[in-house]
Amino acid sequence: MEERTEINDLGEFGLIDRLTSKFKIEQDSTITGIGDDCAVIDCGESYRLITTDMLVEGVHFNMMYAPLKHLGYKAAIVNFSDIYAMYGDVQQITVSIAVSSRFSVEALEEIYEGIRLACELYKVDLVGGDTTSSLSGLVISVTAIGEVQKNQIAHRHGASENELLVVTGNLGAAYMGLQVLEREKEVFKVNPNAQPEFTQVDYILERQLKPEARKDIVHYLKSLGVVPTSMIDVSDGLASELKHLSKANGLGLVIYDEKLPIDQETFSTARSFELDPTMCALNGGEDYELLFSIRQDDFDKIKDSEHLTVIGHFTEKNAECYLADRAGKLTPLQAQGWDHFTGEEG
Amino acid sequence: MEERTEINDLGEFGLIDRLTSKFKIEQDSTITGIGDDCAVIDCGESYRLITTDMLVEGVHFNMMYAPLKHLGYKAAIVNFSDIYAMYGDVQQITVSIAVSSRFSVEALEEIYEGIRLACELYKVDLVGGDTTSSLSGLVISVTAIGEVQKNQIAHRHGASENELLVVTGNLGAAYMGLQVLEREKEVFKVNPNAQPEFTQVDYILERQLKPEARKDIVHYLKSLGVVPTSMIDVSDGLASELKHLSKANGLGLVIYDEKLPIDQETFSTARSFELDPTMCALNGGEDYELLFSIRQDDFDKIKDSEHLTVIGHFTEKNAECYLADRAGKLTPLQAQGWDHFTGEEG
Repeated sequence: MEERTEINDLGEFGLIDRLTSKFKIEQDSTITGIGDDCAVIDCGESYRLITTDMLVEGVHFNMMYAPLKHLGYKAAIVNFSDIYAMYGDVQQITVSIAVSSRFSVEALEEIYEGIRLACELYKVDLVGGDTTSSLSGLVISVTAIGEVQKNQIAHRHGASENELLVVTGNLGAAYMGLQVLEREKEVFKVNPNAQPEFTQVDYILERQLKPEARKDIVHYLKSLGVVPTSMIDVSDGLASELKHLSKANGLGLVIYDEKLPIDQETFSTARSFELDPTMCALNGGEDYELLFSIRQDDFDKIKDSEHLTVIGHFTEKNAECYLADRAGKLTPLQAQGWDHFTGEEG
Repeated sequence: MEERTEINDLGEFGLIDRLTSKFKIEQDSTITGIGDDCAVIDCGESYRLITTDMLVEGVHFNMMYAPLKHLGYKAAIVNFSDIYAMYGDVQQITVSIAVSSRFSVEALEEIYEGIRLACELYKVDLVGGDTTSSLSGLVISVTAIGEVQKNQIAHRHGASENELLVVTGNLGAAYMGLQVLEREKEVFKVNPNAQPEFTQVDYILERQLKPEARKDIVHYLKSLGVVPTSMIDVSDGLASELKHLSKANGLGLVIYDEKLPIDQETFSTARSFELDPTMCALNGGEDYELLFSIRQDDFDKIKDSEHLTVIGHFTEKNAECYLADRAGKLTPLQAQGWDHFTGEEG
């Protein structure tokens, strides 16, 4: 009798731990392996950063409402974001696509046009890849390669007690965009002739369908001379990423509900769906903003930026993660990041 | 009316050309993009090599006869081979897997165990990846990262007229191994209790299921001080790779039927299948041997190696590719490499 453990029982991170625990690092050039936003490779004068992500039809995107061009754009952007999350600059990508014969060459061209637009805007070179057939759905695997100066790399670890936690842009918008798209899909199923209700949701739809990576912030921080002491990108949801930073640094943290940056459109759409905007900001996912820590001395340098919000701070060693409400009451932070094996949050 | 071009109409290389022709190279660090075995990135002291391959269930492998451990091993090896084909050394890989819930954690562990064995043997570090669910088949995407000294890189181009064409090991074995597996699959479909006939086919089955990459040859050539003037790995079949080298170098070539290295087991199995062993060697694919050119002056250095065979030579500029038979008669070389969009050779 062979043992059978269900993949769903372990969750994404438990599964990766189990699958990779026996691997050893043997190359001197390997500085960081699994467990950060990117792998880090010593190339003498600088570090090279490598990150890879696979997008699967029906799991990460739905052909019913993801235009192919946007899909290509997003597949590139999510990888760029991982490079910026280590304070690097993206330079190259490779793209592998598996596709069934129900796709035409023109459909593939749409995907590549989206990738090309992302490459053009972010000054990234497509340097390789693979295009192959699939018996069923569409799969896109992108690997991004970046560079960072050795004395400027931002890992998930590296922070000290009481350093400030900063987030870029605003949170929860991509999640609310997805809710609107899901609602319209259900309406369409019932009545294919219904016109979609997309009024006053342009911004959140764009955040879901055509996200951007925060190259601008990395360059802005460099111009200020601020190097984050730890950093991660917000792909699974703020709460989940805060937990990662807490664990990687061995530090507790507290963030303040009233400080969370939430766009007005996100807020009002959440209300119309009877969702708590704070929960959307904490657990929404796919924002591709940056979450990082800075020394308290650096606060004056960043405090006037409209793109940066101090949402809290690290506390002491081995402490918990808390959300503080307006009254100052602390609640343990719950991470409900996306789990791609259940297709649900949880 | 939207235009619809079928993917099958273009073929793999035509498709890649069409999809990537609009992309521009903007980074100074990009030395080689699409069109060689690897992308080449300038890292100051040396070049970094990047290659990626995607293996799709039902297209590149069949779960019915590919043991999962071998599948993981092969997924790693085919990428290592591309790095060696540029005279580099593999240092890191990333692995992304999409898998449906019909797979158990133990099944995934088998795949990773195969990858781990390949990494251990070739001294390669697993540094990242992605594990996600799939609604149907298994997809494995591997990216390998290698290093090569700037004055030693072997591109597909770089050869001169009359230089010698050398191939490592022997050819056609992996293809004949596949024929045996396909035969047994058909027998199994008719009678699931039949014992497979795997006598005297151990070697060709291993070549199909557990290929090796020629790290040994790269190190051997380096020890001899021989740097290939052009090189490619034999993944799609010797004839197809010869055509690639001919085109990349703008040179014709001739190879000699009687020189093609064919193992005895490959030869006798081909005969038993009523296949021409020469055709199997030329078009079989998946051998993961190296095909390269050397200066005539270097012939004395390599002539005693049992692993290297001179099979022909480049001719003059813009000439054709020919196969010479024992009588000296020249036939234009036909490439019938694997086409992953039709699932057939051709």
